[in-house]
Amino acid sequence: MKTVTSPTIVRTGEDIRQVVHDAQRVGRRVGVVPTMGALHQGHLSLVDAAREHCDLVVVTVFVNPTQFAPHEDYQRYPRELDSDAAKLAQHGCDYVFAPSVEEMYPDGFETSIDVGSVALPYEGERRPTHFAGVATVVLKLLSLVPADAAFFGQKDYQQTLVVGQMIRDLNVPTDLVVCPTVRESDGLAMSSRNAYLDEDQRQRATALSASMQLAGRMVDRGERDVATLRRAMESHLAEVGGVDVDYIAFVRAGTVEAVETIAGETMVLIAARVGQTRLIDNMQIG
Amino acid sequence: MKTVTSPTIVRTGEDIRQVVHDAQRVGRRVGVVPTMGALHQGHLSLVDAAREHCDLVVVTVFVNPTQFAPHEDYQRYPRELDSDAAKLAQHGCDYVFAPSVEEMYPDGFETSIDVGSVALPYEGERRPTHFAGVATVVLKLLSLVPADAAFFGQKDYQQTLVVGQMIRDLNVPTDLVVCPTVRESDGLAMSSRNAYLDEDQRQRATALSASMQLAGRMVDRGERDVATLRRAMESHLAEVGGVDVDYIAFVRAGTVEAVETIAGETMVLIAARVGQTRLIDNMQIG
Repeated sequence: MKTVTSPTIVRTGEDIRQVVHDAQRVGRRVGVVPTMGALHQGHLSLVDAAREHCDLVVVTVFVNPTQFAPHEDYQRYPRELDSDAAKLAQHGCDYVFAPSVEEMYPDGFETSIDVGSVALPYEGERRPTHFAGVATVVLKLLSLVPADAAFFGQKDYQQTLVVGQMIRDLNVPTDLVVCPTVRESDGLAMSSRNAYLDEDQRQRATALSASMQLAGRMVDRGERDVATLRRAMESHLAEVGGVDVDYIAFVRAGTVEAVETIAGETMVLIAARVGQTRLIDNMQIG
Repeated sequence: MKTVTSPTIVRTGEDIRQVVHDAQRVGRRVGVVPTMGALHQGHLSLVDAAREHCDLVVVTVFVNPTQFAPHEDYQRYPRELDSDAAKLAQHGCDYVFAPSVEEMYPDGFETSIDVGSVALPYEGERRPTHFAGVATVVLKLLSLVPADAAFFGQKDYQQTLVVGQMIRDLNVPTDLVVCPTVRESDGLAMSSRNAYLDEDQRQRATALSASMQLAGRMVDRGERDVATLRRAMESHLAEVGGVDVDYIAFVRAGTVEAVETIAGETMVLIAARVGQTRLIDNMQIG
């Protein structure tokens, strides 16, 4: 029988920084997985990756108010630290850093980080304050948990670019590791927001990944024209129905530069509402 | 005879970070003095303070382009690393970190830090991009030189507030130490830009500190009305002549909140042009 130890839950920045420094002082490599909790297999795969590459694994659980717009689901966002900790125990997480909002944003807090052009289109256009909130909280978390490596999921493609830009530009001494999106067996990308979907919506939501897979197969068969790929995806999504597409974008991999023709590594990005739930996903094609 | 050792000049972030980490690993406390070079007694007093409080002293010398507006004196700003290093050798500086612009701002750099309201009035209003440039470069320098303490001069009062806000809000693990303004015997605050003044301007420039001292004496004698103090300063400055006042401000110490009445620790701030040279200074009154 495998022995499972619950992670130690730490509430203050001072305490978690000490944990990290103590580990690093004796040569241990520290990995951090920043999350908003409500952990699913996607998060846990990041913990597994951190476990594999590092000697000490810290998972941060913080529902960050500054990356939600006023009309978004900050209040409603699932908070389930006990069950999160139980899941993390199964994956060898050593510490959970779960600060309060007051710990992260004391009275008088005013600073914001703008990473420039990578934060502007797509999610940045629809959620104008989102990436400043993300960049700022991730920088704070990496100051408090000065890990050697930070693990993020590919599912939030543009977020990984924003974090990468911030880490590079601000000389943050932490390696960014981006791990593959984890999907349900029917292709739906794991997301804490999937919990908002009813059964019918849950079915229709598979159309996001299915439409990208369709585009991927067309590219494999030689299609290079983005307009054609987009039409095929839109037709598929319309056929399924109940999916209100926000955007479908084709960008050069590792960037947010739109392409018209597939001529190298390309990402397809999709955002859509299923009922009231906004979902995003992406896939490499070509 | 005192042995004087020249500081080691380091050009890359990777190298200076290693120096700091190696020192900290064996329990040495590291102090950093961020400068733009052209060192005068004001800077050297910061080095002395760092030397007193720390085991290893790093001075950064970097004329930061992003804190100058296009019409300002970036090109003209004095650069004299050899004589700076010679001065630093006399004050026990161990390392000079003097990165190139390309080292600090490689192609693709886009990130900027906004610290909010403390950066808005006074210097922030006259130099709208200045404090974002300052906050960003100081954060980068503190990432590359993760010192235990950073030493800044009181002369750049609003800058010390901006840096303090940034350090607090972003959980930078470096203590901010603000050291007193160093003045010439006639009261002129030391500044690298004093070198731009001709003999006549140099004389007139003493009116900045003299007018603040006048206000301070009035407060000592019981004057509490800011409008009265301001008028007295303006009269003094007009009498001297050749001093084009940009602003005179009275703020609650440690803030940029303007006050109408002296009722506690108060700073007077002044900015003025003498010829083409823009000078700033400040003093505690009350």
